[in-house]
This record gives sequence, C-alpha cells and structure tokens, in this order.
Amino acid sequence: TKSYSITLLPGDGIGPEVISVARNVLVLTGATEGIEFKFQEMPVGGAALDLTGVPLPEETLAAAQQSDAVLLGAIGGYKWDKNEKHLKPETGLLQLREGLKVFANLRPATVLPQLVDASTLKREVAEGVDLMVVRELTGGIYFGKPRGFKTDWNGEEIGFNTEVYATSEIDRIARVAFETARKRRGKLCSVDKANVLEASMLWRKRVMAISLEYPDVELTHMYVDNAAMQLVRNPNQFDTIVTNNIFGDILSDEASMITGSIGMLPSASLGENGPGLFEPIHGSAPDIAGQDKANPLATVLSAAMLLKYGLGEAAAAERIETAVLDTLDRGFRTGDIYSTGYVLPFIHSSPSSLLPR
Amino acid sequence: TKSYSITLLPGDGIGPEVISVARNVLVLTGATEGIEFKFQEMPVGGAALDLTGVPLPEETLAAAQQSDAVLLGAIGGYKWDKNEKHLKPETGLLQLREGLKVFANLRPATVLPQLVDASTLKREVAEGVDLMVVRELTGGIYFGKPRGFKTDWNGEEIGFNTEVYATSEIDRIARVAFETARKRRGKLCSVDKANVLEASMLWRKRVMAISLEYPDVELTHMYVDNAAMQLVRNPNQFDTIVTNNIFGDILSDEASMITGSIGMLPSASLGENGPGLFEPIHGSAPDIAGQDKANPLATVLSAAMLLKYGLGEAAAAERIETAVLDTLDRGFRTGDIYSTGYVLPFIHSSPSSLLPR
Ligand SMILES: CC(C)[C@H](C(=O)O)[C@@H](O)C(=O)O
Ligand SMILES: CC(C)[C@H](C(=O)O)[C@@H](O)C(=O)O
Repeated sequence: TKSYSITLLPGDGIGPEVISVARNVLVLTGATEGIEFKFQEMPVGGAALDLTGVPLPEETLAAAQQSDAVLLGAIGGYKWDKNEKHLKPETGLLQLREGLKVFANLRPATVLPQLVDASTLKREVAEGVDLMVVRELTGGIYFGKPRGFKTDWNGEEIGFNTEVYATSEIDRIARVAFETARKRRGKLCSVDKANVLEASMLWRKRVMAISLEYPDVELTHMYVDNAAMQLVRNPNQFDTIVTNNIFGDILSDEASMITGSIGMLPSASLGENGPGLFEPIHGSAPDIAGQDKANPLATVLSAAMLLKYGLGEAAAAERIETAVLDTLDRGFRTGDIYSTGYVLPFIHSSPSSLLPR
Repeated sequence: TKSYSITLLPGDGIGPEVISVARNVLVLTGATEGIEFKFQEMPVGGAALDLTGVPLPEETLAAAQQSDAVLLGAIGGYKWDKNEKHLKPETGLLQLREGLKVFANLRPATVLPQLVDASTLKREVAEGVDLMVVRELTGGIYFGKPRGFKTDWNGEEIGFNTEVYATSEIDRIARVAFETARKRRGKLCSVDKANVLEASMLWRKRVMAISLEYPDVELTHMYVDNAAMQLVRNPNQFDTIVTNNIFGDILSDEASMITGSIGMLPSASLGENGPGLFEPIHGSAPDIAGQDKANPLATVLSAAMLLKYGLGEAAAAERIETAVLDTLDRGFRTGDIYSTGYVLPFIHSSPSSLLPR
C-alpha cells in the first residue's frame, strides 16, 4: 500500500469539526483504494495563538513542509480581531502560504444542478456556471514592501502598502492558468487594472507574452471593475480567470457566492514543488462553531483536491466526488444549502462534476 | 433669473449623444424653474487626444475649474487602448478628478420597482435595493507614489504601485460618508482589508475615530472580499458603504450591476469647495456609439445630481427625477433595460426615488 503523510491544520471556529469529517472520509477512501494516510494535527491561527503565542508556530510550518500535503480547516474569530498585525490569525495563514511557496491558488465555483436554487441569481443566469479562479497567492500587495505606518512631513499618520509584481511571478502564475484553461474549456480571462496601475500593465504584458506558448487557449483581458460586474451579469461567460492576489481575493469570493453554496467550495494552493495546501473557501464561522451545523463538504472536496492535485491520486479523488454527489442526490442538506424549493431525491444523471477538470 | 456656468465634457463613444440629451433636459428644466445655464463644451479623453495630443488639455481643466459644475459623458475606446499611460483617455479622467480635487465619489445603486426584472438577481433579493457607495476618489493606489517600472537586482522587470492613505484623507471621506448615511437610513458600512493591509488598518482606525462625531449613525466594518459576497447574497442589508478608491471602483460597479440597469445610474464627485464633477457610471460603449441606442437616463440623472449636490437646486433636480420616473411609467425603454417580462404602463404610486436622499 502507498503511504502519504498529511498535515491537518484544524484551526479555528468550525475548522476542527469539518477537518474531522474530511479526515474520516480520507481514511475510508484510502482503505478502499489501498492508500494509507499518516496524519499529524498541528495548531495554526487563533488556536496556535492561544497555545503558543504566535499564529504559525515553527513546528507547524516544519511539519507542513515535510508532509506530502496539507489540509486546513479555517482560521480567525472575533476573539483575535483586535490583535496587532503580527498576532492576527490571518497572519499565520499568510505565513503558511509564504512558507510553503504555494503561489497558485485554484478556486473553482461550480453551480450543481442539485443546488442551483441556492443561488440568489435567477436560475437561467446561475445554471451551468462552472468557472475557475486562478489567483496569485504569494505576491502583490499582500506581501509587497515597503509597507507599514509612518508620520508625514506635516505630522500626519500614514498607512501604506506596495502592490508589486516581477516578471517571473507573473509568468509562473500565467502558465498555471493557461495549463488549467487548456484542461477545461480552453478560455482564459486575465483580470487586471491596466488602465491605471503599472503593476497591472506589466501583468498584462507578461500574460500576453506567455500566451504565445498556448496558442490553443483563447485569451481575453478584462478590467477588475468590469469583471466584478460581469460575474453578476453573466457568470457563464467565464471558464478560467487569472488575476493577482487582491483582485483574486475579491473576485473568487464574489464568484463563490454566485453559486450560492460557499459551504460546498474547495480550494487548492500549489507551488513549484513541495506540498500543496488545501482548504475550504469558507471562513471559520465562529457563530455556528461546535453546533454540528457546518457544511463539511467544502473540506471533504478539498480533501478530494488534495488527492487529485496534491498526490496525483485521481481515482481516489473521484470516489470522494461521487460520494458527495450521491449524498446530495439522496437529499441530505446542511442549513446553508437547504432551500424550500428543493424537490426530494433524484438520481444524478447529468455529468456534473464537483472537482474542476 | 439665476445663472450658472456648466462645463460639458462629452468625451468618447456614446458620451456626446447622452450629454446632448442631458443638456436639453437642463435647458428645459431651467426654463421652468427660472434658471439660466451657460454651457461650454470642452474636449477630454480620446476626443482630446485626437484633437490636442493630450487626454486633458489645460484649457479643459481651466474651464472646468472656473465653472459652477462639470457634466461628463464617458471616456475611452478601443482606439486608444494600447496608448502609453500618459496618453490614455483614462489618464485624462484621473487628472480631471485630481485637478478638481473631488475626493468624494457618490455612487447610488437603486432598484426601481419598474426595473426590478432587469436585475439578474431573483426578484425577492433585488427588490428594494437602495444603497450608496461613497468612494474615496483622489487617493490610494490610483495616485500613490512611488509607482512605475524598474529592473530588479536579478535583472527582472518589476511593476509597482503604492496604496497609501493619510489621516486627513480618511477623515474627510469618512465625514462625507457619515453625513450621507445620516440623511439616508443611518447605517454606514466601512469596507477595508484591515486583516492584511496597513493602509486599511489606518482606514479602520480613523473611521472609528470619526464615528464618535456621529453617534446617531450605526457603523459596521466589513472586509472587501466579504463585501463582494454580501452584495450578491443580500444587497438589501446595505445602506451607505464607504471605502477606498480601488475597492470602491470594484464594489460600486458590482453594486450597479446588481440593479441590472447600469444605463440608469448617475454619480457625483465632490470636493471641499469648487465645482463638482457629475457623470453616468457606465462607460463609453463604443460598440453602440452613434446609433441612438444608448440609454441617456444615467446622464440625465447625473444632471439632476448636478442640480441637487452641485448647485443646491433641489426643486429643479426633483423635476428631472419625476420626469424620468414618468418616462419609465409610460413604458419607454432603451434596449439595456427592456425585459420581455415587462407589463405595460402603470402609474407610479410608490415613493420610489431615483436620486439618493
Ligand atoms: C483570511 C485572509 C487573510 C484570506 C485572504 O485574504 O487571502 C482569505 O480571505 C482568503 O481568501 O483565503
Ligand atoms: C476609467 C477608470 C480610470 C475609472 C476608475 O477606475 O476610476 C472608472 O472605472 C470609474 O470607476 O470611473
């Protein structure tokens, strides 16, 4: 039997409960597929702050780096909201992304036929949406220097950050995006603000340069404000979207809400080599933590992405995916995806897929 | 009779045709209300580039500065898309905003009962939406320095921008936002990314400080990624939103698309003193320019905002607003807001309002 080491980072709020479901699913799937998992649970975020005083203990990062893949629950909560920057749970997540060098964040947003009514968009607009946001994750304004506070010449306080991209950073995320689009429907939309920002002008120039390596992928460009509109107007126009860290943060959340079921959406963060980081896109939802109300499917599907993208175990991933679809078909729902309009069990005959192709 | 000087900046694409409608509306309204307008038309954007080689000629800025208010059509088009930064039509608009020091951009997004079906959101979600985005317009990453391109230590090209806010910049936009919320439903949501960006941490700190001057306004804070979600999930939760330049660019466009009728939405940009700048939020739509297809109502309503916010002529503004509602009630539609589900003329009995209170 094959054996993989997995670092589990339950984190805060609903993190522990959804991670424990995903862990069980991995064990069961592994038993059937002849795969053994060695799990190591480590603290991160607020949980780590309470335990060790820092949001990403060295031991946690080291364990993650040495494992084959990392599965994260969620981080953050009211309790630590007023903490200084270096003591925020979120800072632990950013340090983890940086430490694992996972520059490519894949965020699928898929509207399943079973859940189309969960969307606030009209059925005819939401139906069939199947898009993937490829977000640059270790650069841009999140990490750019200089950053901080200072006092101006006239005694005023100033807060500042730097949005910055280098050619090599853009090139590598562009390649991931073109590869992703190629495996999907062959359409890539690069989102920037090249009519205003120099960092975006370089972005657009490099994405165009890299597109020469992918003549089979259709490349378009869109300004970020327009993209925010178009996601609402007609999300079906999109296949793969590639964008920088901050625009990707905003647009991927918007896209996920368009599906109406953010409790269903997984994500994968990948580097050149080294373990990938897999996490649900939802937050730590402290208001419902510990009440067995959280939808564990986003984390279960993140475990499936872990198998597929992190370990190359596509068959095992598909097994999980099928199980999730079956569960939905049998009518099981958590509160977040329950809609009164829902008509009970039907067998899914459509080739709907939960994991991005 | 009172007399005002108005600088008209038709700009590009559909700009000239919508400005000419708004001009007629102003003249007619003025005749009834005893107001005389002296119009001066000046080139800006692509039109100015073609004529003078720069996107904002000195004469245009000077005329705008010396007038009582400025009404802009739209700028930009494919033709100038590849221009270098200082020769882009958009640069002319940014220079105009800077030159007029209009730091507060008010962007209402209202779903009229007459047009609720134009939204891609379900009727029960879109119905009643009436929000206002107060966007900081002359600071942040749009204008922050340093910015540009350079070569890295290892020979790589780098593009960079600076997101920066000073206390005084935040304080003044916060005050405009609190005043706006006070005149509306008394709820202000400040949107930032204070869990990651120092510029946002200062933003949040100052908004909280200014809130002490407005105990009657209920202040909440939201991260920008969550705001992008919440606008789709439940736009009715918002009254007034205040945010920085780039987040405001993205969120106000998203909010406008939620109404489904961006051809209807005006905007006002105001400074401490000096003339305000009024413009429709839609773009120059080069694909339909010159075909008499463009919806002129966003510009007509921008003229109403000009009267109300720019000149303090509330009665004249209301006259325009009523005329627009009557026009809709009588069943007139441009293609952008035409929906087959539309049931013909009804008299508007609801107190729907096009201009923000
Ligand atoms: C928690 C926060 C730092 C994080 C981000 O902004 O990247 C989150 O919003 C996300 O998208 O994963
Ligand atoms: C044209 C562009 C520079 C402008 C902006 O980004 O501010 C536009 O999108 C707007 O929102 O008015």
